[in-house]
Amino acid sequence: MVDHVQSLARGLAVIRAFSATTPALTLSEVARETGLTRATARRFLLTLVELGYMRSDGRLFTLTPRVLELGYAYLSGLSLPEVAAPHLERLAAEVHESTSVAVLDGEDVVYVARVATARIMRVTISIGTRFPAYCTSMGRVLLAALPPPALDHYLSQADLRPLTSRTLTSPTALRTELDQVRTHGWSMVDQELEEGLRSLAVRIRNRSGATVAALNVSTHASRTTLQYVRRELLPLLQATAARIEADLSAQTRT
Amino acid sequence: MVDHVQSLARGLAVIRAFSATTPALTLSEVARETGLTRATARRFLLTLVELGYMRSDGRLFTLTPRVLELGYAYLSGLSLPEVAAPHLERLAAEVHESTSVAVLDGEDVVYVARVATARIMRVTISIGTRFPAYCTSMGRVLLAALPPPALDHYLSQADLRPLTSRTLTSPTALRTELDQVRTHGWSMVDQELEEGLRSLAVRIRNRSGATVAALNVSTHASRTTLQYVRRELLPLLQATAARIEADLSAQTRT
Repeated sequence: MVDHVQSLARGLAVIRAFSATTPALTLSEVARETGLTRATARRFLLTLVELGYMRSDGRLFTLTPRVLELGYAYLSGLSLPEVAAPHLERLAAEVHESTSVAVLDGEDVVYVARVATARIMRVTISIGTRFPAYCTSMGRVLLAALPPPALDHYLSQADLRPLTSRTLTSPTALRTELDQVRTHGWSMVDQELEEGLRSLAVRIRNRSGATVAALNVSTHASRTTLQYVRRELLPLLQATAARIEADLSAQTRT
Repeated sequence: MVDHVQSLARGLAVIRAFSATTPALTLSEVARETGLTRATARRFLLTLVELGYMRSDGRLFTLTPRVLELGYAYLSGLSLPEVAAPHLERLAAEVHESTSVAVLDGEDVVYVARVATARIMRVTISIGTRFPAYCTSMGRVLLAALPPPALDHYLSQADLRPLTSRTLTSPTALRTELDQVRTHGWSMVDQELEEGLRSLAVRIRNRSGATVAALNVSTHASRTTLQYVRRELLPLLQATAARIEADLSAQTRT
């Protein structure tokens, strides 16, 4: 039992050792990154090569596109990204800014759909990217929709680290902000995740009114005023969320 | 050793048991789908729940967004999707059709970037979707670029099944077609993968001239003529590939 658990956990950790900054790793680097011994890391790397998830030129290991199948199973089972895609395209074309849809997973928001128009963040965002919920507009929309006991638990133990000089790091201040977000149905976050990044998010609800995801537009702080974001972008964002909600409700779910 | 290999392989098979048509599975269904015993399937499901890759309501299991991290490690390590994205957006807007970039993985093409404008296929395509290379335009562009021994090996053992009445299923005919594709630098496939689906693809080369991916536009056969595809779409596709190639070459690769 422990062996199965451990083997699977270690194999998945080996996959996750590879990233944008480290797409090709040597055996020693994988060992260092995962905390495994060289012998163990080698066994997992060779297993992943054998299963078709990894390639090696003898020295460097890289992932193959087969790993996409693992995430694809999740994405394709979720109707949301598919339903949202054309609406995101339209919104991005209207506002000339990047738009995304994310869901909450533990303390993070995870991107499940995105149309990028320009790269305004240091970090590249794609499907599967995670950010801490407390300092992102989509995260706050999703946290605000949590049942009170779940939110209390989150606030009691979340690690609210300052990522810029503007990040809200007090649980009390965050709770007050989330109350506002819940009342208004939207969240604006101004440079709390990254300097220069301003983001506005609204909720996406299912047929029964439960918030299932968040939709946002992110802009560069130097390009837009807070007033422009609220007056011009908010109505377009709300209209887009309403269209996505209508399509979600119209779907026959099995 | 065998144990590690087997545990990891089985764990990944459990993840892959979930799909668009089966996003939520019971223990028995997972066991049936993977060929594992109920006891073994249960162990892996609980391990995946423990690792945060799966959720359960007691009866039904579903994947969590954490599985996206596994594919994300591959995508984010690859500069191609990121470089191609704005060019795909522009092409899709110009031609009002879906455009995609795929790479070859064994006998399949795997989508690594896509902008969808309308849904013309029965199967939903997203990042990670695979199709057999022999009957797709991107697949033929990529097969045509294989070194001769690799292509010979492919043709000697590929399973060229007819997916529509038009699918080319003779290795000799396919080889002749691939010679044409290599000469012209593009491939048009007319309803060989799916009735009603017509697709045109060109190659994307790296700085040293090696074909690293394919770019396509897919259209509905009832909406476009073969002549329109070749005269109007091909030049736009070639211009887009050239822009992607220029951006790829301009990148400082480490």
